[in-house]
Amino acid sequence: MIGGGVGPMAGVALHAKVIEQTLGDGTDQSHLCVHHYSCPALVPDRTAYLLGGGGDPAEGMAGVFEAAARALSGRPAVGGVPCNTFHAPAIYDRFAAMVAERARPIRLVNMLSETAAFLGASVAPGSTIGVLSTTGTRKSGVYGELLSRSGYVPLLVSEEEQALVHAAIYDASWGIKATSSPSDRAREVVADMAGRLAGRGAAAVILACTELPLALGGTSHAGAVLVDPVLALARALVREAAPDRLRPLG
Amino acid sequence: MIGGGVGPMAGVALHAKVIEQTLGDGTDQSHLCVHHYSCPALVPDRTAYLLGGGGDPAEGMAGVFEAAARALSGRPAVGGVPCNTFHAPAIYDRFAAMVAERARPIRLVNMLSETAAFLGASVAPGSTIGVLSTTGTRKSGVYGELLSRSGYVPLLVSEEEQALVHAAIYDASWGIKATSSPSDRAREVVADMAGRLAGRGAAAVILACTELPLALGGTSHAGAVLVDPVLALARALVREAAPDRLRPLG
Repeated sequence: MIGGGVGPMAGVALHAKVIEQTLGDGTDQSHLCVHHYSCPALVPDRTAYLLGGGGDPAEGMAGVFEAAARALSGRPAVGGVPCNTFHAPAIYDRFAAMVAERARPIRLVNMLSETAAFLGASVAPGSTIGVLSTTGTRKSGVYGELLSRSGYVPLLVSEEEQALVHAAIYDASWGIKATSSPSDRAREVVADMAGRLAGRGAAAVILACTELPLALGGTSHAGAVLVDPVLALARALVREAAPDRLRPLG
Repeated sequence: MIGGGVGPMAGVALHAKVIEQTLGDGTDQSHLCVHHYSCPALVPDRTAYLLGGGGDPAEGMAGVFEAAARALSGRPAVGGVPCNTFHAPAIYDRFAAMVAERARPIRLVNMLSETAAFLGASVAPGSTIGVLSTTGTRKSGVYGELLSRSGYVPLLVSEEEQALVHAAIYDASWGIKATSSPSDRAREVVADMAGRLAGRGAAAVILACTELPLALGGTSHAGAVLVDPVLALARALVREAAPDRLRPLG
């Protein structure tokens, strides 16, 4: 079960990755059942909430999970939310408590914990880990906290570099959100920034925005492991729902 | 509401197109609420059913809509199914009757009727209309029937050409389903086949398989209008749910 809409295309990306990470036999019928709720108007902006100026996204998304539980009629399910900022403890912890109370058949998978687990399997403890994200996710501090808590050293780009990363995602003419496939300029900026983080010692770079993996594919860049939190979440959903159907990494 | 899973990636394509066809204000919250159910194991193969050898996809998908209605708790919704073969009258007509009985708040939009309406707005009555599809959809005859019923002259590729179109979709090394973005060979085959249909007098070519628009973009090719039934369905869902939010064609 996907608690999507945060943003709408992030839910679509997670949904596609769940399908891709499922070992099928070539038939539609060999794929897992996915209930995907994208109700963005019910889930206020996460960054605005954290900065003290908006409605409660935890309450809104918990209502979505309650509706999802009605469709399930008591059958168990595994659920995840493909939004980095939603995983700030000030939002996620209350959300998880509400789901446990109001949508009990849905067991949550935490995208950030799964990202840390993915790192744990790929790089040595104590490594420096680079993070590329929107300015909103950067301001939320979720990855800095996660990495410090997990025994890594977080490494961000400079403020000037951040403006470029943000533009590579949002620029109205060449940003990834504005074009049907990423522009050369967006690809160059994202690759350059990941390369700079690797050059400054990052053993891995977290592409902490759903758009970034579109512009920089593959499993490593400039010697650093590339980590896609949405892919980590997709694999965790498949693993928890049907461990024998999880596609081997590669 | 999307009755997906037929196949799973067709649902994802429809979901993405609903988002793209919605006029937002740049915020997540300006997008429509989408409930997307992808339960492929509940919906047996449509082509097999039509050929007399399989379980009933209408009954399975109606059960999915019943679950969706529980999540909606009586609120109205508009629903569609992004599978060409599912729209064969032997499946769709019984499905529509079951939805009216068991999932009443969900009003159906018919992808094939919407495709015909799109054609009606683009080409003259009586025109010849080419169809490119999988061999399964071709065998189902749904587009031939739809076009004849709507006053057009259907035009298919030859049997030998059909084998190439099918390979462009399914070939394990260069087919669209096998690669993360369509191979040059797949693009060439699809463009060539659409061009041949145009050369034989087609005023429009229906890309009657979700994979085909990935390999041949744009709104026309070799003088023929390109028609994507999933796009027609996506636009109809937005139009019926929130007419003022439908993005102008262009």
